[in-house]
Amino acid sequence: MPASTVTLSIDAMGGDYAPESVIDGVDRLLKAGMKARFLLFGDRARLMPLLASRPRAEAGVELRHTDDVVSDAAKPSAALRQARGSSMRLAVEAVRDGEASAVVSAGNTGALMAMAKVLLRTLPGIDRPAIASVMPAAQRPVVMLDLGANAECDATNLVQFAMMGAVFARAVLGIEEPTVALLNIGTEAPKGDDVVQEAAARLRAGELPIRFEGFVEGTGLMAGSVDVVVTDGFTGNVALKVAEGTARLIVDRFKDMLNDSLAARAGFLLAKRSLGRLKGKLDPDRYNGAMFLGLGGVVVKSHGGANAAGFANAVKVALDLVDGHANERIEHDLKRFATPVEGAAC
Amino acid sequence: MPASTVTLSIDAMGGDYAPESVIDGVDRLLKAGMKARFLLFGDRARLMPLLASRPRAEAGVELRHTDDVVSDAAKPSAALRQARGSSMRLAVEAVRDGEASAVVSAGNTGALMAMAKVLLRTLPGIDRPAIASVMPAAQRPVVMLDLGANAECDATNLVQFAMMGAVFARAVLGIEEPTVALLNIGTEAPKGDDVVQEAAARLRAGELPIRFEGFVEGTGLMAGSVDVVVTDGFTGNVALKVAEGTARLIVDRFKDMLNDSLAARAGFLLAKRSLGRLKGKLDPDRYNGAMFLGLGGVVVKSHGGANAAGFANAVKVALDLVDGHANERIEHDLKRFATPVEGAAC
Repeated sequence: MPASTVTLSIDAMGGDYAPESVIDGVDRLLKAGMKARFLLFGDRARLMPLLASRPRAEAGVELRHTDDVVSDAAKPSAALRQARGSSMRLAVEAVRDGEASAVVSAGNTGALMAMAKVLLRTLPGIDRPAIASVMPAAQRPVVMLDLGANAECDATNLVQFAMMGAVFARAVLGIEEPTVALLNIGTEAPKGDDVVQEAAARLRAGELPIRFEGFVEGTGLMAGSVDVVVTDGFTGNVALKVAEGTARLIVDRFKDMLNDSLAARAGFLLAKRSLGRLKGKLDPDRYNGAMFLGLGGVVVKSHGGANAAGFANAVKVALDLVDGHANERIEHDLKRFATPVEGAAC
Repeated sequence: MPASTVTLSIDAMGGDYAPESVIDGVDRLLKAGMKARFLLFGDRARLMPLLASRPRAEAGVELRHTDDVVSDAAKPSAALRQARGSSMRLAVEAVRDGEASAVVSAGNTGALMAMAKVLLRTLPGIDRPAIASVMPAAQRPVVMLDLGANAECDATNLVQFAMMGAVFARAVLGIEEPTVALLNIGTEAPKGDDVVQEAAARLRAGELPIRFEGFVEGTGLMAGSVDVVVTDGFTGNVALKVAEGTARLIVDRFKDMLNDSLAARAGFLLAKRSLGRLKGKLDPDRYNGAMFLGLGGVVVKSHGGANAAGFANAVKVALDLVDGHANERIEHDLKRFATPVEGAAC
């Protein structure tokens, strides 16, 4: 294995379908030719049989036994204290210790963020890390942040999120000069609260090297009118989950309708291939992999309910961020614009 | 006409397709047998020809000429000062003066709210009016508020919104004991910011006669897990528009897919009736009509882009609120729980 191969640290025990979905996800990536080394943290007794039946995965991973698993119900503070030997914690420590370039986990989000903050530290100049991910939208995929790390944000947080979101879009979507907007309740200048107004004023003043396009509404977000949409973690989390819930509602209603009549069912069979392709385009697995931005290491969170394909996508996001030098770029931009971007945290 | 017939005041000039959509909407309602009297405010020169070709509407309305129209771009403060003779202002004044029991407008939302606050006043004990509407969700229609009147809210505002939302659900959806929840970024007790935590504590303490169910996430909102979902105007507006945008995205993608192949198109034709019914169930017109809650009069805002069917639905909402004594119920509940519900505005 050449020295330049990236090593990824994997929490094999986090997520609803772990460890099966994790091992299958890694197996898929190796089959597809991904050039990476995998450090797998988890229960040897459960992982060994899964690896035994997947020789490619068995050959491509290094297994590290852990006794504990962080439960989904665990409070972040408790997970930090109690689960010192958990698969999640050891996977994050591998990044801290320089053994791996990024960590991927489908486990408890709050616990992962707490461990990442304590073990990897927040980057100098960043007041708070944010969770960013790619959402499907009409005109293009859109990077949205914060998706729930910070329920309350001030203008400084939003300005820093804008910068980190632009870097994420460059690294993951390959867009050289991403357009960025603040999520708001109107596109006119005086709309919204003081926080978005102040953040907009500072972004308009050009304190960051980004293409700031002002405000977008919820409709503009889903239309994909810009590359990066910035908001506080409360609004972002609600927006993400409303989009998920609406998509599920419409697809379910549609299925009910098609089952209603024989003619509709016959039509459904004829349209089946198109429906399959539609599902693929909107498939949450295709967009799985949220990055914790602003930390001293690359941390990617997979959806807890992700299957093997979804987990594999989250690992791809991690590799893209490492290959795209996302963290180095954030640090570079931060240094360049350190004085105006810094400010008092809320 | 019996003395008990409700009189509704209509801004005939507000909205993208006014006055045609307004006159057609009223005509539809009269055709369907609605027992109401309509006071129509607008430009006589434009309204007379439309009424001349619709004898039923011509017989059922009383026309009041107005010279001015509030533009969509007008700032609320400017609309209040300048457009003293606008169709919107005179329509609201008809409620203030006791000539009508409710007003319906598809015009500028901010201007309508400003006029309603100045002319009808906020109810005693309510710090801020809120905008409420019914959204389609999987298990049932859901009342959501605030949809954008208040970008920033404190716990007292949210508690008052919960009470007003429950009254709205009783009046419009006919649910005797509606379940109510706060929109949040998790359903566990410690999630979210201080404002939702304090509001939840007060609602759990039972200071209002409502069935409080704790928190729902964005997915729970669209699943329809409760009857009433309460949030601040920033989050509510974003959630509403993300749902609209997601629905449009999926339906458009679906149409593109169906047009992709001959088999799919044939299937589409067979499934057409079912698709039509799906569209009907999710049709925003069916859910058109947002109420401004907490004012000394019933004010219903139609979507600016509503067609005749949509405008007619908004008028139906207004009549339901009058018939259901929505405002009297809010005043009654407020008096009963005046002391704990009142508090300092944010």
